[in-house]
Amino acid sequence: MKLGLIQMTVVDDKEANLLKAEGMIQTAVLQGANAILLPEMFNCPYDNACFGPYAEETGGATYNRMSNWAKTYGVLLIAGSVPEIEVGKLYNTAYIFDENGACLGKHRKTHLFDIDVKGSIRFMESETLTAGEGTTVVETRFGKVGVCICYDIRFPEFARKMALEGARIILVPAAFNMTTGPAHWELTARARALDNQVYYGLCSPARVMGAGYVAYGHSLITNPWGEVVAEMDEKEGILIQKINFGYEEEVREQLPLLKHRRNSVYLLND
Amino acid sequence: MKLGLIQMTVVDDKEANLLKAEGMIQTAVLQGANAILLPEMFNCPYDNACFGPYAEETGGATYNRMSNWAKTYGVLLIAGSVPEIEVGKLYNTAYIFDENGACLGKHRKTHLFDIDVKGSIRFMESETLTAGEGTTVVETRFGKVGVCICYDIRFPEFARKMALEGARIILVPAAFNMTTGPAHWELTARARALDNQVYYGLCSPARVMGAGYVAYGHSLITNPWGEVVAEMDEKEGILIQKINFGYEEEVREQLPLLKHRRNSVYLLND
Repeated sequence: MKLGLIQMTVVDDKEANLLKAEGMIQTAVLQGANAILLPEMFNCPYDNACFGPYAEETGGATYNRMSNWAKTYGVLLIAGSVPEIEVGKLYNTAYIFDENGACLGKHRKTHLFDIDVKGSIRFMESETLTAGEGTTVVETRFGKVGVCICYDIRFPEFARKMALEGARIILVPAAFNMTTGPAHWELTARARALDNQVYYGLCSPARVMGAGYVAYGHSLITNPWGEVVAEMDEKEGILIQKINFGYEEEVREQLPLLKHRRNSVYLLND
Repeated sequence: MKLGLIQMTVVDDKEANLLKAEGMIQTAVLQGANAILLPEMFNCPYDNACFGPYAEETGGATYNRMSNWAKTYGVLLIAGSVPEIEVGKLYNTAYIFDENGACLGKHRKTHLFDIDVKGSIRFMESETLTAGEGTTVVETRFGKVGVCICYDIRFPEFARKMALEGARIILVPAAFNMTTGPAHWELTARARALDNQVYYGLCSPARVMGAGYVAYGHSLITNPWGEVVAEMDEKEGILIQKINFGYEEEVREQLPLLKHRRNSVYLLND
């Protein structure tokens, strides 16, 4: 897998976002990428007021554009996330397309981001969105890939479940902010990769100062030893990185964390 | 709580180790500590060949010395760990004593450290030790304290269980080595504290180059926002740090990770 992270600027214009995404995908493919990860809410400002107006059903115009990109450019496409509507409910949804444009699955953000840090950031996704109901691991030509969205990464149980379901890389459209980003973005990406002995790719929108929600940027890739393999700054750009599959097997052999789990002692009573 | 971490040198002489521990506890108490954490295997070299010969039963001479220290110095004592023997089986055990010398509980290391990193470190605790069977959270005058030992910290499920059982600080006698220490010690201590919104204290033996097992040192304290509050270097010494209880409540209110758990979606089938 040669993974391309598309750290794009998202604006309040769906068509402009779609054109930007396609242009950057094309560039990434020219640079050798065969798997593409877009950021969270790449076609829509990250704003409760926009999710409804921007939302589409599965099979809608954005869905078809994304499917066509995957097919046209012959890539595995984890299409960031977009606002999805189904029978009146809104979801934060990541669609996954294979190189023929077939939809391999979709992940609906399962942990809604409701945060209120005094004097800095307040955001309540639950004011508009409905939560998904579980992990998403899909079979691809690169093996099993887990997908979760932003705040989902905060929950170690969720990561563990994807790893035990066979994911060797977990790809995360995300948009941490200027409070949680510097404090927790790299730490969480490194720790989840280490604990589960998998790769992680996190893709953020580019940072736009003055926006309603200022994304941290710093899209990055971490490896099964807990190291940062590559990391961007806050500006718009593309990161392309070969994923060295097989290394996770080596790490698992030397430090058999998954084998050493004691599942019977972890049962929770809450 | 004013927590003292005793990063002591451990030698192949039980009496010398006990005298060293007591002297350092005394110094820490003079500096204001009212809770003391000793390192893993503080009375015994970390060596499979030593665990049997050094082991004692619960209620034995080392146990009574530790209980007396707690009472004499009026401290909560998480007495690192020592090799324990019971009906022919050996355990890596942490006893916990209150300020009256009463034993509040004991934790037996539940994840045995069996590692074989090519060209660097090989250690197989399972060659001599038997694993414990669960988490340990005790009620103390400072509130609920979780205790686990070294490799136990690798397992996010185990930490989560202690947090859900009410632990506000998790104290970890430990002995990472010169491979896993630089790579994973601080990362894991920060991530577990962040994910579970609790404090962590990790206490290592001092580093002795040329020893059979070279400990990393770097005893440290991390907080519920995932920050390192204080960290030692590799040399013998004492770290004393006031624990700002109440801060974990503040963090939990602003970023309600524990409240946002979706327990029904985490069920594992392995």
